[in-house]
Amino acid sequence: MCAPGKRMERELADRVLDLAAQEPDIEVAFHRQCFARHGHFAGDDDTRLEALLDCANDPLTDAVWFAHGGYGTNRIAAAALARLDAVGRAKTFLGYSDAGYLLAGLYRHGIGRPVHAPMAADIRHDGGEAAIRRVFDFLRGSTDGLERSLGAQPSVAFNLMTLAMLVGTELMPDLTGHVVLVEEVSEHLYAVDRLFFHVTQNLRGIAGIRLGRVSDVPENDRPFGASEEDIARFWCERSGIPYLGFADIGHDPGNRIVPFGHRG
Amino acid sequence: MCAPGKRMERELADRVLDLAAQEPDIEVAFHRQCFARHGHFAGDDDTRLEALLDCANDPLTDAVWFAHGGYGTNRIAAAALARLDAVGRAKTFLGYSDAGYLLAGLYRHGIGRPVHAPMAADIRHDGGEAAIRRVFDFLRGSTDGLERSLGAQPSVAFNLMTLAMLVGTELMPDLTGHVVLVEEVSEHLYAVDRLFFHVTQNLRGIAGIRLGRVSDVPENDRPFGASEEDIARFWCERSGIPYLGFADIGHDPGNRIVPFGHRG
Repeated sequence: MCAPGKRMERELADRVLDLAAQEPDIEVAFHRQCFARHGHFAGDDDTRLEALLDCANDPLTDAVWFAHGGYGTNRIAAAALARLDAVGRAKTFLGYSDAGYLLAGLYRHGIGRPVHAPMAADIRHDGGEAAIRRVFDFLRGSTDGLERSLGAQPSVAFNLMTLAMLVGTELMPDLTGHVVLVEEVSEHLYAVDRLFFHVTQNLRGIAGIRLGRVSDVPENDRPFGASEEDIARFWCERSGIPYLGFADIGHDPGNRIVPFGHRG
Repeated sequence: MCAPGKRMERELADRVLDLAAQEPDIEVAFHRQCFARHGHFAGDDDTRLEALLDCANDPLTDAVWFAHGGYGTNRIAAAALARLDAVGRAKTFLGYSDAGYLLAGLYRHGIGRPVHAPMAADIRHDGGEAAIRRVFDFLRGSTDGLERSLGAQPSVAFNLMTLAMLVGTELMPDLTGHVVLVEEVSEHLYAVDRLFFHVTQNLRGIAGIRLGRVSDVPENDRPFGASEEDIARFWCERSGIPYLGFADIGHDPGNRIVPFGHRG
């Protein structure tokens, strides 16, 4: 585990390690970088980059599992992609939210196996253990934790803000023909509307959008006047993108797993 | 005046009218739509669109001056551009922040005269009368209120979030060779960093970026660890965009005027 964005709390890491200790076939190790501090980040850019490469290029591990979201992966993702070796380029990478910058870049270049999945820090939520066990089961080969809507077309899943910041950048994959699942947390509905404007205008040619949970919406000085699904439908219709309904993803322990490019 | 995003308070409108009454050569009129309510917006999309067209296509006025920012201009800008008549296509449009969506679309299509300038609602700030008088003077032909950094290359000015949401959309002008001035308000510094990542990756070929004021930054649970100028320099250097220093624009009464495409 490494933390390309926000620092991990040791107490949360200990709870994940306790849970892993009950699973004889799972071994979890936190890189010490997870606990580093540098302003907003879990260590400066070089520290986070080197830790990510330590984990990715280590032939003794099966997967790089991101400890926490926050913000910062976009600052090191391009450099990390350029330095993945043969081991790193065959590895599974699991996370969501801010980790989406790296998942996107991996998928763009067809390297590694990027997977939208719960992160270690999700153990802090009520029911968070279930999210952690969902990842353990996935690593064992179970498909029980996969998002149930995955169908004939390849899917990807992103935090909406992360996807909005990705479009047009060197990390953005070609999503032609893909079903794009989006979720959001802690954004006003007017900001969600604004993000949908941006994303739908920049994602021509996708197979459709599914809406995950939009949670912890801050209270505004006036009601927005439309629900998050109204917003998704409105912008999908405007841009000619099929709106396909809900997806069972979000910043919560129910967040299901979406291997990038997976067909159901 | 019309309000393509947020509703105007009558008390603020009255203060602007009082100020205009002292100027014999200036006449200001608020479209009744400025005071409409529809959820987050000053009336629903149709109401705001029709009011904008009423103002723009009116042969008896010289300029469309936006009353307020907020959010919502992006929802009606493309439809408004399609319905500007010969009168509307020759008019001056003044505003900033959320109004930037329409200024951008006008500039993209080379119609009207889009101008980054204070808005009527700026009268609510200490010293706001000076911002209003700056617009009156500009409308009289004065260049005293122009941003002083305007030079040999054409300039545009945007709220950073607005610009980030514009790139890649049907409203985005070609800014090759332009100096791009950006300002921000009420965003965390990590969000400013994220926006600079997105914008610098999407604005290849511009002549440079100037940094306006980044104001009312909310207090975060941890310090970001870099200033807004550090952020601007970092992303400009990464993307090969010249960083040109500060600009005297922002969400405050000091906000100076930038006619889009203007050369100093």
